[in-house]
Amino acid sequence: MIRVGVIGYGYWGPNVVRNLRSLDGCQVGGVCDQSPAALKRVNQTYPDLPVTTKPSELLISTAIDAIAVVTPVSSHFELAKAALENGKHVFIEKPFTSTTHEAEELIELAERKNLRIMVDHTFLFTGAVRKIRELIDEGVLGDLYYYDSTRVNLGLFQHDVSVVWDLAPHDLSIIDFLIQAKPEAVIATGEAHLNGLVDIAFITIYFPRSTIAHLNVNWLSPVKVRTTLIGGEKKMLVWNDLEADEKIKVYDKGVQKNNGQGLYDLLVSYRSGDMWAPRVEQSEALKVELDYFIECVTKGRTPLNDGAAGLRVVKMLEAADQSLKASGRAIEL
Amino acid sequence: MIRVGVIGYGYWGPNVVRNLRSLDGCQVGGVCDQSPAALKRVNQTYPDLPVTTKPSELLISTAIDAIAVVTPVSSHFELAKAALENGKHVFIEKPFTSTTHEAEELIELAERKNLRIMVDHTFLFTGAVRKIRELIDEGVLGDLYYYDSTRVNLGLFQHDVSVVWDLAPHDLSIIDFLIQAKPEAVIATGEAHLNGLVDIAFITIYFPRSTIAHLNVNWLSPVKVRTTLIGGEKKMLVWNDLEADEKIKVYDKGVQKNNGQGLYDLLVSYRSGDMWAPRVEQSEALKVELDYFIECVTKGRTPLNDGAAGLRVVKMLEAADQSLKASGRAIEL
Amino acid sequence: MIRVGVIGYGYWGPNVVRNLRSLDGCQVGGVCDQSPAALKRVNQTYPDLPVTTKPSELLISTAIDAIAVVTPVSSHFELAKAALENGKHVFIEKPFTSTTHEAEELIELAERKNLRIMVDHTFLFTGAVRKIRELIDEGVLGDLYYYDSTRVNLGLFQHDVSVVWDLAPHDLSIIDFLIQAKPEAVIATGEAHLNGLVDIAFITIYFPRSTIAHLNVNWLSPVKVRTTLIGGEKKMLVWNDLEADEKIKVYDKGVQKNNGQGLYDLLVSYRSGDMWAPRVEQSEALKVELDYFIECVTKGRTPLNDGAAGLRVVKMLEAADQSLKASGRAIEL
Amino acid sequence: MIRVGVIGYGYWGPNVVRNLRSLDGCQVGGVCDQSPAALKRVNQTYPDLPVTTKPSELLISTAIDAIAVVTPVSSHFELAKAALENGKHVFIEKPFTSTTHEAEELIELAERKNLRIMVDHTFLFTGAVRKIRELIDEGVLGDLYYYDSTRVNLGLFQHDVSVVWDLAPHDLSIIDFLIQAKPEAVIATGEAHLNGLVDIAFITIYFPRSTIAHLNVNWLSPVKVRTTLIGGEKKMLVWNDLEADEKIKVYDKGVQKNNGQGLYDLLVSYRSGDMWAPRVEQSEALKVELDYFIECVTKGRTPLNDGAAGLRVVKMLEAADQSLKASGRAIEL
Repeated sequence: MIRVGVIGYGYWGPNVVRNLRSLDGCQVGGVCDQSPAALKRVNQTYPDLPVTTKPSELLISTAIDAIAVVTPVSSHFELAKAALENGKHVFIEKPFTSTTHEAEELIELAERKNLRIMVDHTFLFTGAVRKIRELIDEGVLGDLYYYDSTRVNLGLFQHDVSVVWDLAPHDLSIIDFLIQAKPEAVIATGEAHLNGLVDIAFITIYFPRSTIAHLNVNWLSPVKVRTTLIGGEKKMLVWNDLEADEKIKVYDKGVQKNNGQGLYDLLVSYRSGDMWAPRVEQSEALKVELDYFIECVTKGRTPLNDGAAGLRVVKMLEAADQSLKASGRAIEL
Repeated sequence: MIRVGVIGYGYWGPNVVRNLRSLDGCQVGGVCDQSPAALKRVNQTYPDLPVTTKPSELLISTAIDAIAVVTPVSSHFELAKAALENGKHVFIEKPFTSTTHEAEELIELAERKNLRIMVDHTFLFTGAVRKIRELIDEGVLGDLYYYDSTRVNLGLFQHDVSVVWDLAPHDLSIIDFLIQAKPEAVIATGEAHLNGLVDIAFITIYFPRSTIAHLNVNWLSPVKVRTTLIGGEKKMLVWNDLEADEKIKVYDKGVQKNNGQGLYDLLVSYRSGDMWAPRVEQSEALKVELDYFIECVTKGRTPLNDGAAGLRVVKMLEAADQSLKASGRAIEL
Repeated sequence: MIRVGVIGYGYWGPNVVRNLRSLDGCQVGGVCDQSPAALKRVNQTYPDLPVTTKPSELLISTAIDAIAVVTPVSSHFELAKAALENGKHVFIEKPFTSTTHEAEELIELAERKNLRIMVDHTFLFTGAVRKIRELIDEGVLGDLYYYDSTRVNLGLFQHDVSVVWDLAPHDLSIIDFLIQAKPEAVIATGEAHLNGLVDIAFITIYFPRSTIAHLNVNWLSPVKVRTTLIGGEKKMLVWNDLEADEKIKVYDKGVQKNNGQGLYDLLVSYRSGDMWAPRVEQSEALKVELDYFIECVTKGRTPLNDGAAGLRVVKMLEAADQSLKASGRAIEL
Repeated sequence: MIRVGVIGYGYWGPNVVRNLRSLDGCQVGGVCDQSPAALKRVNQTYPDLPVTTKPSELLISTAIDAIAVVTPVSSHFELAKAALENGKHVFIEKPFTSTTHEAEELIELAERKNLRIMVDHTFLFTGAVRKIRELIDEGVLGDLYYYDSTRVNLGLFQHDVSVVWDLAPHDLSIIDFLIQAKPEAVIATGEAHLNGLVDIAFITIYFPRSTIAHLNVNWLSPVKVRTTLIGGEKKMLVWNDLEADEKIKVYDKGVQKNNGQGLYDLLVSYRSGDMWAPRVEQSEALKVELDYFIECVTKGRTPLNDGAAGLRVVKMLEAADQSLKASGRAIEL
């Protein structure tokens, strides 16, 4: 039985608590939040749960095996470090840390203490991303040409990070999972319109073998869009995460190089066939992920979304920030 | 009565001929194409129209007042220059020329000869773009935050230009028309997967006063998308050009800066109201544009889509190419 | 403080309990269900709530002021009657009863005992239906020409009632609320394909002044559709309840009668203008409704969705059944 | 070489002429219309085509082998009869005739004269309907449960026929082609709001083996809808004719009967799998159909959309009219 202390009960924390409580092999040992209103909400829903405004009560408690850090990124390092130092495993919100340096220190500490870190890259546990990975692994798409994501909506502005650190971690963790290659360079452009923080940004990431990824993140869009195009040599797909059903559509469309000779011959030709929407598993991703966290902790396994995965995402975020500040200069990774 | 000679009867030429023939005050004086198959198609549809494989027959004919150049961009300069030298007005496909130098020479020549140049920026004559310009001019949107366009589909690969020169001129001419400011810098990223020409590209253009434009152009998309988000201080809109009706949706949504004081206060707040889809004029844009061309030629007026407008687009295209070659370096304009 | 006993904790009961618990002025006094698994779910979520498998425990309890009947329709009459006889107000699932006779008896009993009956016509408390009623009341739509609803999906087959009694009550209660006139006749067609119960049905209801309503209900549709067209003399609207935003689109489109004279003159002409999607209140309808129930009980008010409203819906359902059995014969109301 | 005279050059006639001219083995021998404006349009587009306002000029011309009747239905019988009597094959707009009696007389006359009649059921020559028929013939859908079509838009009001005779022939000809069984009974409801002609109607058609068809036709809809649901025992499909691609989506969804025993056991269960959008042939249907007409005439073959097919549609239209007049009474066929 793994006892988890949850620090942070704002937007995402309630989902973590609800799912942890629904799992076998796991107990919620307490909830911490600085806000009395948040703790009151905990009491109303779970009258049996101990609450506190002091993180240290959970961090040093001997009745706690693991800490879920569900706070703004600025506090991640300090809380995760304290948890690890007190011998507790860590489940931590994305993005992992504010800097690569912090991430590296936490990874090193966890290794020394033989503790697990899992970064909450929830999308890796959705049916949609799992299905896309399956299509890639089985060679259905062929070599990857591009990953092109649009992730825009009105708000939520965070008061301490830009839209890059708020929305891009989703795609960066997915890209890391799907492309399975080391990125070569990051170029980012964008603009701040309201409070000095970038609220619209466009990030290009170059990978080996001509694979290119592009992210369009925007807090000032009148409509919510969560659409990703993925182009492969053999097939292409559209993933629309807002669709209730048919989230993924695989198109039997493609392009072949020709040996065009005359001036007016097209050098490529097109193939257009059926479209196919595979059934996608509908389980709640966070529940699958937390179940996996408990399993990794119990059996001492390294999760796929471990500290190293979190670090890879933070590196890309840092590079995007650098590129933004340097007017789109390519930042090598 | 303006007599127009049309050079080029490939994909777009037939539309130019059909519309010219439907206009009052205008006659098609002849059609030229290098391909006998193309000329056979002319004969079948318009048995009365003279055809030729030699451009010079139209360029020097005294029975011709204006030349419509509807050929690949590589031949634009030579054909337009010959037309102007022979005292003929020019209607010319987008992009205007292959280089800014060519564009400048043609503009200078036309001025010297007192002839009109109109660059076929067709979109400026659509009901949708006209309506958006109206909304901007009337202050409905407020200060412009961003223009973000996605223009992707499968093919058509051109054998001589990249996707940037094929698809981006549409948006660049629209941006020039809507934003009405001089761009400051262009940053482009992209990749070539098949025949050495860039087939997917992402272009950011910085304008004064924090207005940012972004173009996503792609020849390798399984689905056709023609969607532009435009965000303003007061209102935001979505223009989906593939919608039969309701091409433009104006959202009474917005963001206000707050004087948040506590650490956890949001610094901005959101407003969410009605959505409104103004009726958009459905006339065929090319017909409206060619009618305007005849009027400009007849009355000696300078069209809004003159050589200078064409040059502004070519400058942005050149800058995008330069940025692509320099790994996303910002090219100042 | 009104104390409510909830009978039935299947699909809908948990929503009733959750919302009742969130209201001021109301307490859930206990939950009854025949299924031990259902009661276990109650315990897990609300460890403090008394549960029972015996309805009578709630029906006769002096600590209970009102009973929520959230069971299949076949048990409605018996449970509601017992509740009223024991002096308790009744909140009851749609459809109100299995027969008009039962409905009339309950109405009479409640009147005699001076108790409230509220039939759970939840849709009347949605922002969308409220907004449509507002548009009608303000004369925006003009005289109503038609109400045409498509309400189809795959399942849920009920084991005791047809698709008519399962899905049509929603539209019938909405029609009753919006058209505000006495229906004249009902004609229904349909077919049973699996277990002897009609699984696809088409119901036409004639109202005075040429207003016609039509319902398309189907348990065998591969896709879920919840779309209603409402045509008025002045404006028309589309209500798509599956849209996250923009549930209602009001079209400034219409038809005018002409005085066409020649044989080939059209006798009508069309008007096509803007479209407008009014902001729709997003509150959970069931919460609004239950809050209203508590208010009606507390202040002794007659709810708009009282027993009489429930009876009007049951009358139309009975007529639809009769028409189905008589091969589409019109049943006068 | 089959020479075709075309009578009627209003909305649809120009398409007939354009396609006939594009076919090998066929010539347009002349065009007749009562309206001088229509004939002027013919002249502008096809300066070589003889035109006339007198049908008899084409009907008795020895230079004409076949007559295309593209006029309002009220004139079909007279024109087709004259054509047949003068030894000419007939291509005729839907609906075939105004009455079953007229249809029977024309069929008998054509047989006696050994001439072909083809009724313009254009939809039977679309890639979409062909593909659906293929799916049915190959048993992919299994036994048909239902055909449910929504065919609504704003206008076009015809001055001489109701929405039933204007829009329903499309679906009736498709149903005849797909279900391949004799209908048993027709029930229709509807209403007239403007000029005395029914402008909204709902038609149910009962077929053997529990197959049911339903048509929703409406001239007063603010939006255009062309969506048909087809449910089969094994699979179900949605045909949205307004989609540019993916017109047909086949769902691997279905229902199985169970041997539920307990009162609360569901008697059916659901299966939910992939969705699949087969590639659909994009050729212009009218061109395919007219090519087939020329082939049938040349080779003396009976077309699938012959007079008998036209008669079957007219019978259903007549029954719908009768049912409408008799308040939804079932009309046996």
